[in-house]
Amino acid sequence: ELFDELTAFFQPKLLAGRRVLLTAGPTFEPLDPVRGLTNSSSGKMGFALARACAEAGAEVTLVAGPVSLPTPAAVTRIDVQTALEMRAAVLKSVAAADIFIGVAAVADYRPVQASEHKIKKTAVGSALTIEVTANPDILAEVASLPAAPFCVGFAAESQNLADYAESKRLAKKLPLVVGNLVQDGLGSDGNSVILFDDAGQHKLTPGPKMEIARGIVAHIANMLEQD
Amino acid sequence: ELFDELTAFFQPKLLAGRRVLLTAGPTFEPLDPVRGLTNSSSGKMGFALARACAEAGAEVTLVAGPVSLPTPAAVTRIDVQTALEMRAAVLKSVAAADIFIGVAAVADYRPVQASEHKIKKTAVGSALTIEVTANPDILAEVASLPAAPFCVGFAAESQNLADYAESKRLAKKLPLVVGNLVQDGLGSDGNSVILFDDAGQHKLTPGPKMEIARGIVAHIANMLEQD
Repeated sequence: ELFDELTAFFQPKLLAGRRVLLTAGPTFEPLDPVRGLTNSSSGKMGFALARACAEAGAEVTLVAGPVSLPTPAAVTRIDVQTALEMRAAVLKSVAAADIFIGVAAVADYRPVQASEHKIKKTAVGSALTIEVTANPDILAEVASLPAAPFCVGFAAESQNLADYAESKRLAKKLPLVVGNLVQDGLGSDGNSVILFDDAGQHKLTPGPKMEIARGIVAHIANMLEQD
Repeated sequence: ELFDELTAFFQPKLLAGRRVLLTAGPTFEPLDPVRGLTNSSSGKMGFALARACAEAGAEVTLVAGPVSLPTPAAVTRIDVQTALEMRAAVLKSVAAADIFIGVAAVADYRPVQASEHKIKKTAVGSALTIEVTANPDILAEVASLPAAPFCVGFAAESQNLADYAESKRLAKKLPLVVGNLVQDGLGSDGNSVILFDDAGQHKLTPGPKMEIARGIVAHIANMLEQD
């Protein structure tokens, strides 16, 4: 742990003076007080990236979905549950951000109706239909703001990673998309990612999420310097 | 931490020689590799109870849904994702158990069809329908086994706690149900619970989940001794 703190302290201050806004974790879209739709996301990659940005000297705000991870040192955390709450928190903070990194696995759909009280279970094997509606796309919205920050997206895919990541990058007009195959990263402490930008594809050396996060921060800092 | 270990060491061995099987956490019912239905459950209460049982001298097996909590000392952990996987793991271990405690917030429904690959998002605001089917009731199944262990259920409710907890206890023929109002316990480290058994209602002093867990263990041990 002391070694961790020393490593953190001696990280190059690549983002000194920059203000970073991140989203991390899943969102939870309630059907009732306990049930809901969600995406499986441990939040670890987003929290590692928030920490890496803070270590690099940035002023960091982290909008986090429901995860039980500790807040990284010197990071301002805003806890939210749903995609709509995450969107509101992001839009409130985005004007002050130079960099926006959307790591959260935002649930794409939310139930049309949420019950205030717990729905009682029906018989085993009985069927039910849940009506859902598509949630707003927070990253696309931020990227299309008139004074948009430098926007970084994440693409977690189970197949055709390069195609999906690159088309996400072009569709949302993002300078940078971090792609990873869900088999590799979800829930674990390690990760293997490829960065997609105008210059092409850059595969980071697979490793612990904290090292991957530092690699992403270095890449962002480098892109901002060339701007 | 040393204090924690000493406290653990000096717990009375109320369950010495007993074999306990527990379920904890949520289950995740996939729609595709990243999306799914779930119940919000941090797993903290179930993990605290597994630890309290082990401290009390029991041989403990914990079937855990997707949570990122450390395994308590001396506890055998089986990780599962879905209700069907949890059911299979429980039925495989239950013959060797004297006590079964169903703490998991098992998702009551699972999507009828799960896509092997990530479903691509549709336009914002567009609607979709998810067909779901009711999952098996693991606790009821275990309680109705010919050589059923001593079965303890949990009832998390947002209203009418006593009514629901008591009717759950009678419907599933459980000797003991632990009831808590979801507003009080979910996700937090503290909890406030009421025990329901043939003798009536017993409110435990509200406190940290570890203390509540020890109170529940003492109550179970007491009921078993009177058997």
